[in-house]
Amino acid sequence: MKKADKFVMNAAGRIVPTIINGKKVTPFMGVNKYRPTHKGIATRIPTCIDYPKDGNKIVESLKEALIKSGLKDGMTISTHHHYRNGDYVANMIFDIAAELGIKDLRWFPSAAFPCHAPIIEHLKSGVVHHIEGSLNGHLGDFCSHGKMKGLGYLRSHGGRYRAIADGEVHIDIAVIAASAADMTGNANGVLGKHPFGPVSFSRTDAKNADRTIIVTDSLIDFPCYPWEIMGNDVDFVVALDEIGDPQKIVSGTTRITKSPDRLLIAEYCAKFVEAAGILKDGMNFQAGAGGTSLAFVHFIKEMMLEKGIKARSVVGGSTKFLVDMMEEGLTDYIFDGQTFGLEAISSLRDNPNHIPIGIFEIYDFHAKGNIARMLDVIVLGSTEVDVNFNANCVSHSDGRMLHGIGGFQNCMLAKCTILAVPSFRDRIPVIKDEVTTLVAPGELVDVIITERGIAINPRRKDLIEATKNSSLPIRDIKDLKKEIDQICGIPAKPKLSDEAVAVVEWIDGTILDTIRKVKK
Amino acid sequence: MKKADKFVMNAAGRIVPTIINGKKVTPFMGVNKYRPTHKGIATRIPTCIDYPKDGNKIVESLKEALIKSGLKDGMTISTHHHYRNGDYVANMIFDIAAELGIKDLRWFPSAAFPCHAPIIEHLKSGVVHHIEGSLNGHLGDFCSHGKMKGLGYLRSHGGRYRAIADGEVHIDIAVIAASAADMTGNANGVLGKHPFGPVSFSRTDAKNADRTIIVTDSLIDFPCYPWEIMGNDVDFVVALDEIGDPQKIVSGTTRITKSPDRLLIAEYCAKFVEAAGILKDGMNFQAGAGGTSLAFVHFIKEMMLEKGIKARSVVGGSTKFLVDMMEEGLTDYIFDGQTFGLEAISSLRDNPNHIPIGIFEIYDFHAKGNIARMLDVIVLGSTEVDVNFNANCVSHSDGRMLHGIGGFQNCMLAKCTILAVPSFRDRIPVIKDEVTTLVAPGELVDVIITERGIAINPRRKDLIEATKNSSLPIRDIKDLKKEIDQICGIPAKPKLSDEAVAVVEWIDGTILDTIRKVKK
Repeated sequence: MKKADKFVMNAAGRIVPTIINGKKVTPFMGVNKYRPTHKGIATRIPTCIDYPKDGNKIVESLKEALIKSGLKDGMTISTHHHYRNGDYVANMIFDIAAELGIKDLRWFPSAAFPCHAPIIEHLKSGVVHHIEGSLNGHLGDFCSHGKMKGLGYLRSHGGRYRAIADGEVHIDIAVIAASAADMTGNANGVLGKHPFGPVSFSRTDAKNADRTIIVTDSLIDFPCYPWEIMGNDVDFVVALDEIGDPQKIVSGTTRITKSPDRLLIAEYCAKFVEAAGILKDGMNFQAGAGGTSLAFVHFIKEMMLEKGIKARSVVGGSTKFLVDMMEEGLTDYIFDGQTFGLEAISSLRDNPNHIPIGIFEIYDFHAKGNIARMLDVIVLGSTEVDVNFNANCVSHSDGRMLHGIGGFQNCMLAKCTILAVPSFRDRIPVIKDEVTTLVAPGELVDVIITERGIAINPRRKDLIEATKNSSLPIRDIKDLKKEIDQICGIPAKPKLSDEAVAVVEWIDGTILDTIRKVKK
Repeated sequence: MKKADKFVMNAAGRIVPTIINGKKVTPFMGVNKYRPTHKGIATRIPTCIDYPKDGNKIVESLKEALIKSGLKDGMTISTHHHYRNGDYVANMIFDIAAELGIKDLRWFPSAAFPCHAPIIEHLKSGVVHHIEGSLNGHLGDFCSHGKMKGLGYLRSHGGRYRAIADGEVHIDIAVIAASAADMTGNANGVLGKHPFGPVSFSRTDAKNADRTIIVTDSLIDFPCYPWEIMGNDVDFVVALDEIGDPQKIVSGTTRITKSPDRLLIAEYCAKFVEAAGILKDGMNFQAGAGGTSLAFVHFIKEMMLEKGIKARSVVGGSTKFLVDMMEEGLTDYIFDGQTFGLEAISSLRDNPNHIPIGIFEIYDFHAKGNIARMLDVIVLGSTEVDVNFNANCVSHSDGRMLHGIGGFQNCMLAKCTILAVPSFRDRIPVIKDEVTTLVAPGELVDVIITERGIAINPRRKDLIEATKNSSLPIRDIKDLKKEIDQICGIPAKPKLSDEAVAVVEWIDGTILDTIRKVKK
């Protein structure tokens, strides 16, 4: 079975395979061009008869749970990334699979972290055939060098949900780490000894997998509420002493940037939002947990206080900064997909207006709308942009795939999507003639904000018009590029072979781009 | 198309059709004998492309929404009953259908109420072919007299959910009345001018129907949170001046019985629970909103205070009495499927431990367990029981189908199911040789409690043993029947023809019993 076969040029001008890991796929047809015609997933129908009458689904070990779940060659195993770089569970699963002599598994995580580097050994030995999910750090480097047997498959958070719901990915066994659970499998990430926040990314795994295993280090009395994962979707419960490193569970950048350039970018973002008329009472917006995003939140907050306005909702990656905003009455709600920092976790647990949000709600494209589309503004980072406003967030300019794809693509649907980027990193320009990897089509990127100026997508005449009399440094993206190139010089093109190592799927399930093997 | 055809005797000894409204069905095979082998529903995959970019799904009228949803002959239209006897919406739908000349609709409500009597005209004229759902009062009487074109189909709350999820019932259009909604269809029953409680029964309708319409009389700013119905599942939003009669929305018996007999029954129930060792710290139980149930809650509460214990959770039909229990620290949680009374609604809205609960969570039988099974005790009423502990809750002893089936069958899975019944009503004995309609197989009914004595199912040797030294009047059910018959006399058998007018489905989707036409 070839990793990738039958390449064609798609509507974005990218050469992509039409056969991936033996399965036919559809090339990207353009933004809003692909329309699904098939029906969604039909799952196995369980029955109460097959589950313990007293509701007690506890088994002795993860190994027992995997065996009872029928683990065998070629299966798809899903996990979530809410334990971030402190997760022990994914490594345990594949160590057990290796011990049992299982081969050719597909790992389907919502994201992988550096702590998952040991899985490289299982990729080498054939226990894991390939990974479908963000491949950053060591795993990304491994894949970038063409060492993974199957083709990598990058899906956005929303795309992953869609792939499950559409029946594109069938999960055989979902293994869900929970900071607290009861004996019947009701589980969440806000109670127990090492809480991490919402476990929302796994709800669809639990619903659609043939078998669902909850792994926890804090068993509590039935009913474990909130039951973000509902026991009625769970087959087995495993209680272990430790399922993650508490020091690393709640990781992520949770400090406002101190870099003068980044602060300037954040300030430009906030001022742009004001100038464009987006900053108004009842607005809904999203801002992440990176240093620049936090600074953006800081500036927006100052403006809101000054103008005496409040937001209706803020979507996180929640942080102490968003929690402060809500507690100061500057937003009615926080909708929270991932939580960064202990203050945010206790807010999520205790404040009824701090609400865990699922991927269906915020990002699913094969739904009757989604919240991302209704947000007034989203501010994001990226690794590269180009003069046609195309954006990349997964690979470096040397072609190595080192960063997670996250919800980047899904955020493109907001009413105004701003990419906040430094004009160069390590003397490598961020604005290119063409992005190394196409992750978001340029027609959906509205504004690119650097410390040297702001480029508005020519398609957004409304934003150009609204901000034309502002004092902001609004510039043509090509001029901006020229200035940056004069400082940095134009870097050499990445040395890439023809061999495909991974693909980027667009939010509608079509194939947007191919990531190629880097030459040594 | 025959209403019912090819009758056989099922495992409960009841003669049931194997063809209903033209479709093949499975006769009841015995408790825990039927195991599903097919896969569940695969729904149409929608796409954001087809929905307004600004999220605004408001259309001018319910008529426009129904037309845009493609309303046509033979479709299945679902509604919920949370507006109870104050609902205006179901009648509106079928009036519009009549106006548009539509025929042969299947109405699939979660329950019907006396306010829906006008639909009899649409049943007569052929706009509505038949109703699948509780047929009480006028509609039940109409059906009982053989006047409905199709066969009535009674499913428990859990059975209705299961039928949708299993693909047994495909909903073409779900029309969901909400006390508050935003323009994109996020909706609930706790905000707005006439709140009614959770709208949980409709969640599965919204998820699985081809088209979902929200009808509200209180449009609020996006996002309408809690979004019990999520906008991403909604096609159209209709705002009307009035969608229900506020006087009748929050109806239901919400006073403790004053009848000395019923009070005695309730006291026996509470004392039985204590004697059987069920009353203990951390217990989970369910008690409804009827007068006897409320009295039971009252007695249980007194006992809990006396013993210094608290419940972990109480499942409602929530009432002021349950709210008081939680506020006095006698339970950690209320799990609430339906709310009775304004105090309960404000508790549901404001107390994070008063939690709306879906049918999947509490009652679904084709799940990996459910909460009903984990409850220590449930107390219910019924219209009839028999000497084999079989129970009936839908028909009178004259054979007329006048009462809703509700969650009656689903509650049979609790660790201890108690039927609290007066020994006779209007001089008609409640304990029969054989129930007129079999709604719950006797092997699942644990205890029958009347004012004249308590009968424990011989299968429950544990309960017999636990209570044998109590002072409770524990009696053989046949002795109890004899005593009651001596008072009332044995009533004449109901005058029923051979013609089937409805069936009762068991929680696993098999056909448990047939309801026959009453003779004039």
